[in-house]
Amino acid sequence: MKTQYYTATSIDGYLADDDNSLDWLFQFGAIEEIEGVKDDYPQFIDQVGALAMGSTTYEWLVEHENLLENPETWPYEVPAWVFSSRELPAVDGADVRFVQGDVEPVHAEMVTAADGENVWLVGGGDLVGQFHDRGLLDEIILTVAPVTLASGAPLLPRRITDSPLKLVDAQKYGDIFAVLTYEVQ
Amino acid sequence: MKTQYYTATSIDGYLADDDNSLDWLFQFGAIEEIEGVKDDYPQFIDQVGALAMGSTTYEWLVEHENLLENPETWPYEVPAWVFSSRELPAVDGADVRFVQGDVEPVHAEMVTAADGENVWLVGGGDLVGQFHDRGLLDEIILTVAPVTLASGAPLLPRRITDSPLKLVDAQKYGDIFAVLTYEVQ
Repeated sequence: MKTQYYTATSIDGYLADDDNSLDWLFQFGAIEEIEGVKDDYPQFIDQVGALAMGSTTYEWLVEHENLLENPETWPYEVPAWVFSSRELPAVDGADVRFVQGDVEPVHAEMVTAADGENVWLVGGGDLVGQFHDRGLLDEIILTVAPVTLASGAPLLPRRITDSPLKLVDAQKYGDIFAVLTYEVQ
Repeated sequence: MKTQYYTATSIDGYLADDDNSLDWLFQFGAIEEIEGVKDDYPQFIDQVGALAMGSTTYEWLVEHENLLENPETWPYEVPAWVFSSRELPAVDGADVRFVQGDVEPVHAEMVTAADGENVWLVGGGDLVGQFHDRGLLDEIILTVAPVTLASGAPLLPRRITDSPLKLVDAQKYGDIFAVLTYEVQ
């Protein structure tokens, strides 16, 4: 069982641009359509038993997928914890648990629910940083898109240098994505 | 002949931290000492015929290597153009040419001096951005250190999304560095 941060990012470490848009990412289409590349997401999500995200990520998802109108398109089968200090709309039929405050007790709940499977931190960066602060983050898997954004939502707004990460894998997906896997030490 | 940006960076796209320090990078020691890894720098620099850097990079180098006291340790054999609007100390015996303003005519001089060899943009990010703005940047080679800095001197403070980069190569150097090579399109 691992707690994983699996996300796409620009080369310069932004999850989204200043307009909270992912158009710079979606221009590349689906990974499984890149010649000679096997999308790693199905294998990744297959081993996930619980996930967490921040309010901005959740709101983006609800809006982008129009989930209040089409709740059946909620993309996850495992329980999702959404951290927010505000009241957010629920998606009918989706197993979404709104929480706030310290990530540690929530992580314990997630681990129990995951029942031996992995815990996925979807984002954003500061929420993942809070898990890292508590020593609860095990692995970072980055799909690096071949763009720079110069500003936006930061990947992981923490200084992690004294106990550096360990590069476990570096893959090239076509001439587009570099997929970098790091262990947190 | 290519104009190349070859640099080390943190995962989140910083060249140096807020104190202008590279301690987070130097903690890993020399690349050639990583087991099973062949340092790519000798092969890279062998094909460089001219280089350029900004004033911050030059001043860091002069101070870090104590070049005013030990000018013989100036690390480059090819001519170096240093962009600065301020007067900077020269290093005795080093072929350093101080310039300012538009990068285009300077690039033309560099290409002539390089005589078929490559032009290396050492940094910082904004200077490289000025070359990119003028369509003069061909390749970006990043040695990604397994750390995050959260703030500091940005790798390339430009939004490059409409004409994304092309990933040419992704290498793993031990369990430390990912080396990513991009072509500018």
